[in-house]
Amino acid sequence: MPNQDLPLIAELCTAVGAAHVLRDGDLVAYERDWRKRWHGRALAVVRPGSTAEVAAVMRLCARHGVAVVPQGGNTSLVGGSVPDDSGTQVLLNLGRLHRVRSIDAANLTMTVEAGCVLQAAQAAAEAAGLLLPLSLAAEGSCTIGGNLSTNAGGTQVLRYGNARELCLGLEVVTPSGDIWEGLSGLRKDNTGYDLRHLYIGSEGTLGVITAAVMRLYPQPAASMTALAACASVEQCVALLQLAQARAAASLTGFEVMSDCALSLVRKHFPQIPQPLPPAAWTVLLEVSDAESADHARTVFEGLLEAALEAGAITDAAVASSVAQSRSMWHLRESISMAQAEEGLNIKHDIALPVSRIPAFVASTDAALEQAFPGARLVNFGHLGDGNLHYNVQVPVGGSPAEFLARHEHAVNTLVYDAVQAHGGSISAEHGIGALKRDELAQRKSPVALTLMRSIKQALDPGQRMNPGRMLDTASITATDP
Amino acid sequence: MPNQDLPLIAELCTAVGAAHVLRDGDLVAYERDWRKRWHGRALAVVRPGSTAEVAAVMRLCARHGVAVVPQGGNTSLVGGSVPDDSGTQVLLNLGRLHRVRSIDAANLTMTVEAGCVLQAAQAAAEAAGLLLPLSLAAEGSCTIGGNLSTNAGGTQVLRYGNARELCLGLEVVTPSGDIWEGLSGLRKDNTGYDLRHLYIGSEGTLGVITAAVMRLYPQPAASMTALAACASVEQCVALLQLAQARAAASLTGFEVMSDCALSLVRKHFPQIPQPLPPAAWTVLLEVSDAESADHARTVFEGLLEAALEAGAITDAAVASSVAQSRSMWHLRESISMAQAEEGLNIKHDIALPVSRIPAFVASTDAALEQAFPGARLVNFGHLGDGNLHYNVQVPVGGSPAEFLARHEHAVNTLVYDAVQAHGGSISAEHGIGALKRDELAQRKSPVALTLMRSIKQALDPGQRMNPGRMLDTASITATDP
Repeated sequence: MPNQDLPLIAELCTAVGAAHVLRDGDLVAYERDWRKRWHGRALAVVRPGSTAEVAAVMRLCARHGVAVVPQGGNTSLVGGSVPDDSGTQVLLNLGRLHRVRSIDAANLTMTVEAGCVLQAAQAAAEAAGLLLPLSLAAEGSCTIGGNLSTNAGGTQVLRYGNARELCLGLEVVTPSGDIWEGLSGLRKDNTGYDLRHLYIGSEGTLGVITAAVMRLYPQPAASMTALAACASVEQCVALLQLAQARAAASLTGFEVMSDCALSLVRKHFPQIPQPLPPAAWTVLLEVSDAESADHARTVFEGLLEAALEAGAITDAAVASSVAQSRSMWHLRESISMAQAEEGLNIKHDIALPVSRIPAFVASTDAALEQAFPGARLVNFGHLGDGNLHYNVQVPVGGSPAEFLARHEHAVNTLVYDAVQAHGGSISAEHGIGALKRDELAQRKSPVALTLMRSIKQALDPGQRMNPGRMLDTASITATDP
Repeated sequence: MPNQDLPLIAELCTAVGAAHVLRDGDLVAYERDWRKRWHGRALAVVRPGSTAEVAAVMRLCARHGVAVVPQGGNTSLVGGSVPDDSGTQVLLNLGRLHRVRSIDAANLTMTVEAGCVLQAAQAAAEAAGLLLPLSLAAEGSCTIGGNLSTNAGGTQVLRYGNARELCLGLEVVTPSGDIWEGLSGLRKDNTGYDLRHLYIGSEGTLGVITAAVMRLYPQPAASMTALAACASVEQCVALLQLAQARAAASLTGFEVMSDCALSLVRKHFPQIPQPLPPAAWTVLLEVSDAESADHARTVFEGLLEAALEAGAITDAAVASSVAQSRSMWHLRESISMAQAEEGLNIKHDIALPVSRIPAFVASTDAALEQAFPGARLVNFGHLGDGNLHYNVQVPVGGSPAEFLARHEHAVNTLVYDAVQAHGGSISAEHGIGALKRDELAQRKSPVALTLMRSIKQALDPGQRMNPGRMLDTASITATDP
């Protein structure tokens, strides 16, 4: 409907300035996600410069009945932040709302705009001598608004919680263009329904987050990591319990890596040191200590000694320097790249009660091996949060493209059936987006889906916010190659 | 409408057993709250024995268009859990759903029914060697369902969060009698809107919480308290910052008590030891240590020495035994009783950004003194959470009843205006109920109120859930004497 659009475009230009309403030229950075798996075409890419401008854009889109796709750093892993290919949706990019509005050291909070890149927010907190403990692989590109709209997880959830737990207040623009000013920064506030938690994790389907108050923490005096070798998942869980009892809240990381995962790193990145000999499972532990590096080392040594005595681990190595700690994290973070080097694979971002993980892994590994002989389980993740990246790599020598074409759906069904049987989640930290929308409709309880649809209908009656994401209220046409 | 009711009563008797549908005899324990400030008359008190029975009751009430008031321990401080005096509402008491369904030590969770008394849930966790860190004055009577429906706070929020942060999953019966089974126990689950956080804090106005998965923690090796004397609120805030930096997550309590508050304790409970000489402010600090009592003491000594050097405190005393620690808490907990002994007073449960507390206290104290000469500020509370119980006691020698009758409204207006001007909340941890419903309607942003009403309309279209509480969708007629 290009002709009918013209009034809206002209009005958008008036609202935010013509330079910030993009229709021509190379818009691929906006219309295609970073992994190049999802792409669409926008009616226009609109880049407002203030909350008031966001509200003006939303009012205009409401008046014209035009759908809006909010976008932060465009690093969604589930096709949540690009338009469909109809050419009728306004892509609302928050990139110009990137200020850290304020830091309140005595309240341990920062107020930051949605388009602020996570790393920039971390840096601002650090410059004030404080810690913003949200940390994840995409932190150099992803934004606070995207982190909150997807309730991002990452590597320190064990201690500090998900993005949700780190947020004390929001500023949100509603589909009709009203501004809810909820930037309270309060740790206690029982005055009605918790709108904040409703918008967090709603993936842009209820409104647009424009700013947030984030919780900060004192910087720890020292952080230290260790690696431990375990013979089984049961041992990993036993080690976790010991570590939680002995290190309590100073335990800030507990990541597991299967030997298959580390063998891919050895193959593709042989230069990365692997301090321990291969074991069925290698655990990366991190302790962040309020006292000193010496105290952190004492805690680690006591813990690992107790774990050896209890038979929870077979070997361990404590980092002897900050550089060694970084190198251990580098090992963990290289698994995804090593997988990519090895070729196409099938990713699962699942969560389970920690107590169910040993049984889940044993039975699901076996079922996959039986159904797809030779398929490799590249299993790693945030065991402390019950979150596994339970990925399936094509059998050695097989054609990845062919395997995926033939088996991806069946592999997903097998894995998600098992997740469901063990009381787990098919999306631990990546969200639903377009990728898992139909899976969600199949697997979430009908009562929960009905409640969610009622809420969507109540807060976005025109069904114009990020249509086709999360809930099946519209069909998304962007293609997943 | 007694005659029309009869079919519903008969059906309720069939659904839950006639013995659990109470209409006659002494129902005061259900129809009047524990502080005897709110009372009403129910059509019937219904006590279902299972989630299925709750669902049956809700279906029957839906079919007959009858309103439902859910009730746990009936310890609401805001008139949230008794029926109005129309005699038309079903009082749904959850007391028979009191089981701890399971404890999962490896997952650090417990699944507990709504009617379980908080202290019983704490005891079950302790028997499994674990800690349920929700703790508040009413814990001997209040229930998990009530704690969650009001997002209870308490004394350990600083470290462990409010009831909200301690809940990993819910089972809820909707107004139409459907059961949402959301007892996941997952630490990460990004599969749609967070229904859990919507029901938590909704005060029974959207549905009935019947069970919950609560987070548990390892028991600390030792807990220890100290008292510190501060000359000003600024010093209290400076001490808090130091304590958070040095003790980090082992700081589990930070309570302030004004001299006026402690002087009432000295007057009415002279037998309770006050280890420090009177100071403008006395702070109770608690450290829970994963290592040992010795380590806790070392942390305390280092902290208090640094605080003395920094000029944040003028005096301090560390408890030398568990009994002394308990006695320090007893001092803190006796303030409310001492206030009651002194006579009627005006209570405020407010929250502010911690950084704004010094300015708030200075200007509001002064404004109250000017407007109500001689009125005494009994100020105490959870400074670490920004939560003050900023209570106003009648001038010495004045008539409490007369003062309240003449000035209560003006005092509230002055205090709440100041709270609002400093970006605070008029209900930190007690909720809204009937008591603050009209205040909320005046003070919450119109955008937020519109969003809340839309949600209420979507999830309780018949407006039958706890009518007249929190939102002004119906008028509550219970009387506040």
